[in-house]
Amino acid sequence: MQKWLDETLRRLNRTTDMNPADGFSRLSYSPEEGEAHQAFREVVTELGLEVKQDEAGNQWAMWHVADGAQAVGVGSHLDTVYNGGGYDGAAGVLTGLAAIKLMKDEGVVPTKNIAVICFASEESARFGVSTIGSKAITGLLDQEDLADIPDREGQTIREVFESFGLDWDTADQAYVPDEGLESFLELHIEQGTEIEDHQAEVGIVRGIACPIRLKVTVRGMANHTGTTPMPKRQDALASIAPLISYVEEEALRRNEALEKRLVATVSTVAIGPNAMNVIPGEVELGIDIRSVNDEAKRQLAEDIRKRCGQIAIDRNVQIEVETLVDNDSVALDETMQKHLVDICESLSYEAIQMDSGAGHDVMNMAVRWPSGLIFIPCKEGISHHPAEYASVADLEKGSRIIAEYLRQKTGDVHENQDRSHSTAGLP
Amino acid sequence: MQKWLDETLRRLNRTTDMNPADGFSRLSYSPEEGEAHQAFREVVTELGLEVKQDEAGNQWAMWHVADGAQAVGVGSHLDTVYNGGGYDGAAGVLTGLAAIKLMKDEGVVPTKNIAVICFASEESARFGVSTIGSKAITGLLDQEDLADIPDREGQTIREVFESFGLDWDTADQAYVPDEGLESFLELHIEQGTEIEDHQAEVGIVRGIACPIRLKVTVRGMANHTGTTPMPKRQDALASIAPLISYVEEEALRRNEALEKRLVATVSTVAIGPNAMNVIPGEVELGIDIRSVNDEAKRQLAEDIRKRCGQIAIDRNVQIEVETLVDNDSVALDETMQKHLVDICESLSYEAIQMDSGAGHDVMNMAVRWPSGLIFIPCKEGISHHPAEYASVADLEKGSRIIAEYLRQKTGDVHENQDRSHSTAGLP
Repeated sequence: MQKWLDETLRRLNRTTDMNPADGFSRLSYSPEEGEAHQAFREVVTELGLEVKQDEAGNQWAMWHVADGAQAVGVGSHLDTVYNGGGYDGAAGVLTGLAAIKLMKDEGVVPTKNIAVICFASEESARFGVSTIGSKAITGLLDQEDLADIPDREGQTIREVFESFGLDWDTADQAYVPDEGLESFLELHIEQGTEIEDHQAEVGIVRGIACPIRLKVTVRGMANHTGTTPMPKRQDALASIAPLISYVEEEALRRNEALEKRLVATVSTVAIGPNAMNVIPGEVELGIDIRSVNDEAKRQLAEDIRKRCGQIAIDRNVQIEVETLVDNDSVALDETMQKHLVDICESLSYEAIQMDSGAGHDVMNMAVRWPSGLIFIPCKEGISHHPAEYASVADLEKGSRIIAEYLRQKTGDVHENQDRSHSTAGLP
Repeated sequence: MQKWLDETLRRLNRTTDMNPADGFSRLSYSPEEGEAHQAFREVVTELGLEVKQDEAGNQWAMWHVADGAQAVGVGSHLDTVYNGGGYDGAAGVLTGLAAIKLMKDEGVVPTKNIAVICFASEESARFGVSTIGSKAITGLLDQEDLADIPDREGQTIREVFESFGLDWDTADQAYVPDEGLESFLELHIEQGTEIEDHQAEVGIVRGIACPIRLKVTVRGMANHTGTTPMPKRQDALASIAPLISYVEEEALRRNEALEKRLVATVSTVAIGPNAMNVIPGEVELGIDIRSVNDEAKRQLAEDIRKRCGQIAIDRNVQIEVETLVDNDSVALDETMQKHLVDICESLSYEAIQMDSGAGHDVMNMAVRWPSGLIFIPCKEGISHHPAEYASVADLEKGSRIIAEYLRQKTGDVHENQDRSHSTAGLP
């Protein structure tokens, strides 16, 4: 099993080296994401499943055993951030496929249909919009609002979507009706160190902390750095610099008082005109705040707004604070959590229950179907970075949990049959 | 005269509107700078001067009256920063030409050659390198070091130089031998408010504060914003944010104790990976420090280094501080200062003597020839900004000072002659 996992991981990442210096850059709807999807289709075909692409570019690998019946879904994504790792997303796709392989190798034929979904465009790195594929499946996609959002090079979502061979105007046809799926389970690398900190092997996730994202725009006055006396300046960058420290200090301070973790980051900066001899006239900061404690998250956002208001007055600059995203945290299905905990116990894997600080495709799926999320450890919690790493041993544990889950969910019939089936409402 | 100044200003800027919303972006060796040079050549030809381009793209308008004799030089530049104004540089070129027009209109024929120089690529906005044209003229150009410096789009100096129709390998042939010029005088907008603060009309500059420029590179650890607990982060941006405040606070504080002004600015920021859900792993700050008090300037640079060393230890990040530029301040010719003050008095223009916080082409010329610098006011000191503005009345005063200076320097012979001459060592 470990050899197959290791080889298939490299195939999905289209690499021989899982930690290249620049990592992997398979951006949303890029040719690189398309190539990874192609690798997925090849592996899936070798496993004897049918595979189809839906109108949003999601890949559906189907093990059809019953006509018109709901499918049990598992899966994750293959796109990455800029210079990301080869496990974020890929681990979930890989272990979903490995579970199928384990079942097939053991001659199990399920009594229900199984779908391994490879979601398109989960990462927000390219457009600031995450989980486009699973949003389309669940009916959460706002096509009109998103169409014209540009990437760094000025290409819009609509444009890259179309260069991916899709039609943005029909992306909503990827919608899956309620009867299409029975449930959904995702596996993902933890991207933190809580499992390791608890000396456990697996995390079963209770809830997902969805972010509040703020855009802070500061407008001062661009002027010559050499000739503008210090007291006469309206330096947009110097004005807002204390806010960067404030966000970090407040997240640290509030953390101590909160039961559920809160994290906050000034993660993006754009500055204009960004020339050596011109005082910064305009600065844009992107702030990402997360907690499963929605109240604590919103309180910090509110305090950041107040702080900006005070800075605007004190420094004679204009500051605008825009909320880009503000979603409630997502609670996952308790019955499924219990089921997964029981499976881990039966397999003698030490599991903890925990929250997720990162968003995943499952947070959209959970709005529609009973859903669950399994974490496996990744080295030192490093993710979104070329050094991202998860061991094949942990990938194997994940695969065995999913296989056991699918066996119990879909029955455990040892027989061979070869029939063609379709599932209601699925591609 | 004012009508001619107003019309010619617009011609040099190739515009009918001197304050368009986006200002002017005539970057170093861009097609836009080339078009402004073309306008210069047309105006010069109408004034009856010869015009030549040298190997560094500088435009030389020559009023030749004596063979092999030194020329008296005046001039400035026509390139701009990104979204700059139409007066920084253009005012000096315009008033130099206007002085020639005044002399011609009055039938003055000089006894010495006069050169109106339009320097190429004075601004550092595109490449972080200033005064390329005057560096080539004065022999201060380091062709090898500069050749491969890229702009924002990755085009190198060598490449844009060549697309300007020039050969980077022969740029040093723009060098002018000592006997080519007798002296040099530049007029520039003040880009500050000292003239206005003293209720004067003109500034005669004593010295130019050349900058120290530092590049501060911070390397932390890029990681997921949602899953990395606050105490486990190595956030490059949060680590260095206090330095931005430090630079401003120290410049303000030291200013109070110093006789000669000191200014310091964090003017550029680059951040990686600059994605909403990734903790900043790398930050690059550009810092610009200026004073005619070289010791005070270097002391602040040294203290910034120390502060960075402390931050690196406290925050467990790597910080590298690189000195990009560190030039001594330039003192201008005292005899010429006295001469210009006397002319202002004779014309009843209220003049102050002052220092320049900005670098100009004259700082290179002053290394080789007795040189002077005249400031005229610009509205509210605003420069490097679309709102940059100087009145035609002030441009006229500047033109009359230069014309009077040229008359006194080159003799004042009222006669008509039409002969062809050349000046030793000039294009």
